[in-house]
Amino acid sequence: METRLEEFKEYLRKIEYLNAASGLLYWDMRVGMPKKGIPYRGKMLSYLSGEAYKLQTSDTMKEYIEYFVALEGLDDVTKAMVERAKKNYDQTKKIPEERYIAYVELTSNAEAAWEEAKGKSDFEIFKPFLEKLVSFNQEFVEYLGYEKNKYDTLLDNYEPGITVERLDVVFGELRDAIVSLLNKIENSKVKIDDNFFKKSFTEKEQEEFSLFILEKMGYDFEAGRMDVSTHPFTINFGNKDVRITTHYLENEFRSALFSCIHEGGHAIYEQNIADDLDGTMLGGGTSMGVHESQSRYYENILGRSREFWTYFYPEAVKRFPQFEGVSFDEFYKAINIVEPSLIRTESDELTYSLHVIIRYEIEKELINGKIKVEDLPQIWNAKYKEYLGVEPKNDAEGVLQDMHWSGGSFGYFPSYALGNLYGAQFLGKMLKEMPDYNKNIAEGNLDEIRLWLKENIHKYGSVYKPAELIKKVTGEELTAKYFIEYLNNKYNKVYEL
Amino acid sequence: METRLEEFKEYLRKIEYLNAASGLLYWDMRVGMPKKGIPYRGKMLSYLSGEAYKLQTSDTMKEYIEYFVALEGLDDVTKAMVERAKKNYDQTKKIPEERYIAYVELTSNAEAAWEEAKGKSDFEIFKPFLEKLVSFNQEFVEYLGYEKNKYDTLLDNYEPGITVERLDVVFGELRDAIVSLLNKIENSKVKIDDNFFKKSFTEKEQEEFSLFILEKMGYDFEAGRMDVSTHPFTINFGNKDVRITTHYLENEFRSALFSCIHEGGHAIYEQNIADDLDGTMLGGGTSMGVHESQSRYYENILGRSREFWTYFYPEAVKRFPQFEGVSFDEFYKAINIVEPSLIRTESDELTYSLHVIIRYEIEKELINGKIKVEDLPQIWNAKYKEYLGVEPKNDAEGVLQDMHWSGGSFGYFPSYALGNLYGAQFLGKMLKEMPDYNKNIAEGNLDEIRLWLKENIHKYGSVYKPAELIKKVTGEELTAKYFIEYLNNKYNKVYEL
Repeated sequence: METRLEEFKEYLRKIEYLNAASGLLYWDMRVGMPKKGIPYRGKMLSYLSGEAYKLQTSDTMKEYIEYFVALEGLDDVTKAMVERAKKNYDQTKKIPEERYIAYVELTSNAEAAWEEAKGKSDFEIFKPFLEKLVSFNQEFVEYLGYEKNKYDTLLDNYEPGITVERLDVVFGELRDAIVSLLNKIENSKVKIDDNFFKKSFTEKEQEEFSLFILEKMGYDFEAGRMDVSTHPFTINFGNKDVRITTHYLENEFRSALFSCIHEGGHAIYEQNIADDLDGTMLGGGTSMGVHESQSRYYENILGRSREFWTYFYPEAVKRFPQFEGVSFDEFYKAINIVEPSLIRTESDELTYSLHVIIRYEIEKELINGKIKVEDLPQIWNAKYKEYLGVEPKNDAEGVLQDMHWSGGSFGYFPSYALGNLYGAQFLGKMLKEMPDYNKNIAEGNLDEIRLWLKENIHKYGSVYKPAELIKKVTGEELTAKYFIEYLNNKYNKVYEL
Repeated sequence: METRLEEFKEYLRKIEYLNAASGLLYWDMRVGMPKKGIPYRGKMLSYLSGEAYKLQTSDTMKEYIEYFVALEGLDDVTKAMVERAKKNYDQTKKIPEERYIAYVELTSNAEAAWEEAKGKSDFEIFKPFLEKLVSFNQEFVEYLGYEKNKYDTLLDNYEPGITVERLDVVFGELRDAIVSLLNKIENSKVKIDDNFFKKSFTEKEQEEFSLFILEKMGYDFEAGRMDVSTHPFTINFGNKDVRITTHYLENEFRSALFSCIHEGGHAIYEQNIADDLDGTMLGGGTSMGVHESQSRYYENILGRSREFWTYFYPEAVKRFPQFEGVSFDEFYKAINIVEPSLIRTESDELTYSLHVIIRYEIEKELINGKIKVEDLPQIWNAKYKEYLGVEPKNDAEGVLQDMHWSGGSFGYFPSYALGNLYGAQFLGKMLKEMPDYNKNIAEGNLDEIRLWLKENIHKYGSVYKPAELIKKVTGEELTAKYFIEYLNNKYNKVYEL
């Protein structure tokens, strides 16, 4: 059995090598590939992913899975590894290959159509593609099967085990709490000025400050690097080469800064996964939601906290003459300004989850056939009006703003808000276990936090499913209460409610 | 037959995709990979090259080759493609796999030993490895077979068709001509001062000037990019993504500059290979020697010419206050200063070939068992004394200076000097066909040259073997006379002989 297990791991490693190679090709494409290289790069990528697909769906894979599924008394890691391999195998086998190929082709055309539609702010251009994408996803749900809700099957791709039943509860509570807080904030006498963040900041000085903070966070630059790309992302090839990217805006100090902290959170997760998960398919974060819990914890709960800036504000003032005359309190408040807006990626910490919940509510109904694609712009705008009090003037700043659907990602959005909930739930536990939590942060000592996250979350990679992990770490099921409590505490102070 | 040919190409493309992916992984490793990523990167690379090896030696490959070899009346491209595939296949099949694996393992240990030996300047550390490397190469020659000279078989890896018989003639003539010119230069009354090139130059200003020149040369930045690495190199993934690297020395203006022009020459070759050679295994330069003919043509024949600097000297003076008071003539001469020295990579245009010829003479005797590894330091030093009039004080600046042997590259060195010969031979033809050759250069118009090189050399990729290509382009066999004539003309003027 031991020999067989080693052979199986060696087999899985081949898939990992191919995926890691594709990953580097992708990274390079986003970060600096000369533009005429695009067509050839596309062919290379499709060859490599085709090879990975063959290995994932081969008879050899089937035999390994059958052998190990039949064994009793496997340890946690081997069990999780076999389960994951089986799930991948079953899912790819259940979808007829020609339908999958047609879908991949559709998404590549749909992305171009979405780009054009967004550029022209015309939903009609994207509509026929979106209709097909939705119908493909409905078809896939039929192949894959579902229990209570069709949308559950799609959610499961990104957040294994999560259901509409559960999300309706937690997102419902969250939505109501935020909307109520938002109303109070609108009536607050506190008006925050954040114009000093919109002065001019060179790329170089922004970069240096971000690197300084990342270093302090414990992002290991000997196992990573930071580059520039249009959209920031994190990517890794094993746990010893975990790269982040960012994007600088000359007139918005907070943009690159918080995107670096965010991606740094993703990267620290990957860097701290245990070495011995190599070759098990479990050497990556366990779900998009848990991944977002790490990035959003670092970005918001930690990175927008009073204690964090107690340490970093003097450094910022020292580096940036632009902040001359800005007091600590003004600086801190401007980082936490709340302004209901139309664009998810530019929204503040409080309203961000509302953007996500709107998408969740729409996707759920869409996949279950309760609403039609053609009605989306109107539904979208109505929800923005209702929850956020703002209304898009056109589709580009409304229903067309995100690229997710054009790539076929339905069920992904909830991860972002789940990340907020998980993160606050972890915070609750950290506060209990680390008496010096706030003191350490205020002194710029972020190591204890990173080590706690490593010991409790990171090192396990994907050994535990999200629900198992949350229970294991916090002793509780997923709940919105910690995040709601956190938001109330924070904004009550910031806006003196 | 057409269908079969398309299938064969599709099969060969898979090998190209794998090699291109390995290429990018290698590039990334040299240019910016975080250091902890090394072990995993090694595993990825060995997996990908193993897969390429499998495809290259498979029964499918054998069947394709047998099918096409038997066909009559193939066009030039298909014929060359089949020949190349057959040669690769035969060569890999002739060497027993376990001996090849042992050799690869040896080279990886030998590289580490060489590095240590060079660091400590102690040949004894490297000696046992070098003895094994030589003996392995002798063994491989037995497997692969040879006609007149064992060393021919190794030469053939880098310069298909070249022989000791031919090299003895051309390198003999070249050696005598250079030695005689060198003696005259030593007695010249002209003493050149190049100290102004050793002032301080920032990386950024050096980079900008190099980019300016590369642009003028016609290196296509939409199909390439330039990065920094310890040792400069050119690498490509198809002909639309051809990258170069360089290395800046603060106190040596000429180092990065001429390395950029050199790598630019390699890159322009690859960028201008015909698109339709994709999938034929012929979409790369035809040999190391012809590749060096392009890089060394650009670096020396063009890049160190009076006309080239007629155009670029004013630009250099404009950009670099360091050159204040330096006349055009002083500038031009300092670029062409001759100083016999110990290190090949730092040597001037005239003496460079002598460094190479010394290595050729040694390798030839070594592989034929006429000299022993243990006697190398002494033989090396004696030849340097005889040809160049300088003597290494230790092994680090003598026999240990190059890494080639530690990696198992025997037969590679002659390419460098062959590049000089080919380059001057092409120059002879260009001068006949382009009446405005010198005028164009002096006006900074380098396009005609690039287009001539493209039409006559680049576009063919590896369709023609070096000897065929030289004949086709110049109407003559390989000869040293053009290069010798070029050297005499040039240095007679520079040193007023």
